Amino acid sequence: MESGSGFFDDAYFMKQALREAQKAFDQDEVPIGAVVVMQDKIIGRGYNQVERLGDATAHAEMIALTAAFNHLGAKYLPEATLYVTLEPCAMCCGALYWSKIGRVVFAAADPKHGGLARVKLHPKTQTATHIAERESLELLKEFFGRKR
Amino acid sequence: MESGSGFFDDAYFMKQALREAQKAFDQDEVPIGAVVVMQDKIIGRGYNQVERLGDATAHAEMIALTAAFNHLGAKYLPEATLYVTLEPCAMCCGALYWSKIGRVVFAAADPKHGGLARVKLHPKTQTATHIAERESLELLKEFFGRKR
Repeated sequence: MESGSGFFDDAYFMKQALREAQKAFDQDEVPIGAVVVMQDKIIGRGYNQVERLGDATAHAEMIALTAAFNHLGAKYLPEATLYVTLEPCAMCCGALYWSKIGRVVFAAADPKHGGLARVKLHPKTQTATHIAERESLELLKEFFGRKR
Repeated sequence: MESGSGFFDDAYFMKQALREAQKAFDQDEVPIGAVVVMQDKIIGRGYNQVERLGDATAHAEMIALTAAFNHLGAKYLPEATLYVTLEPCAMCCGALYWSKIGRVVFAAADPKHGGLARVKLHPKTQTATHIAERESLELLKEFFGRKR
């Protein structure tokens, strides 16, 4: 599957999500990043800030979604795509469900906390994966390797 | 089950959550409210603000949890109880999972969007229900009755 409107592709926007993940890494947060894109434009960015904000809900996707809602002044995102470097957890899948987002692209599956098998997205939401999977998993591996 | 430390009981704090729900009602939002309580003190309040903020994730529980995290400067809430006037959705159950909250008390079940059957809370999180159930459901019924 390709992104909706042409010039930029999924690989391009996932690279932007990885840049967000790198920011998390640099701040000693679990390195996960997300961007929300509409008509080839990034309308929301976020990276995991659980430690920095001391808020267990401050996941990359939640921050990027709220930024997109604020940008548009709208509570639904049917024409937008969320790119995230790891499969969303149950909380973030629930948030994506409520957002009615058009498409979710995640770099790599999360066998431990991934929520897609448990929490349904909106029936119209499309999904895609395996975009920059290796880069995302290497960043996570490096992070948790250092922690040990 | 009773609240942890005595003087105030579940009915008292659920009434506080209902006051939050009434604020939502008064602002033409689906009337759901929540409070987070620790050692008989309210450390976070929230009511549904999806319309006002134009943010599909602005549920009462999310707002109350983030307020509690900010109040404590901590990302886990093992000694706190969340009181909410309706069963949390999948997103909010996911948030409660991450928060490691000690206890969740909800007034009424939500057969349509309730998340507890799909999204596990933390293994140590206790739950209780049927506190002020009638009051909560009547407020919701009045709200949706007006909408028709």
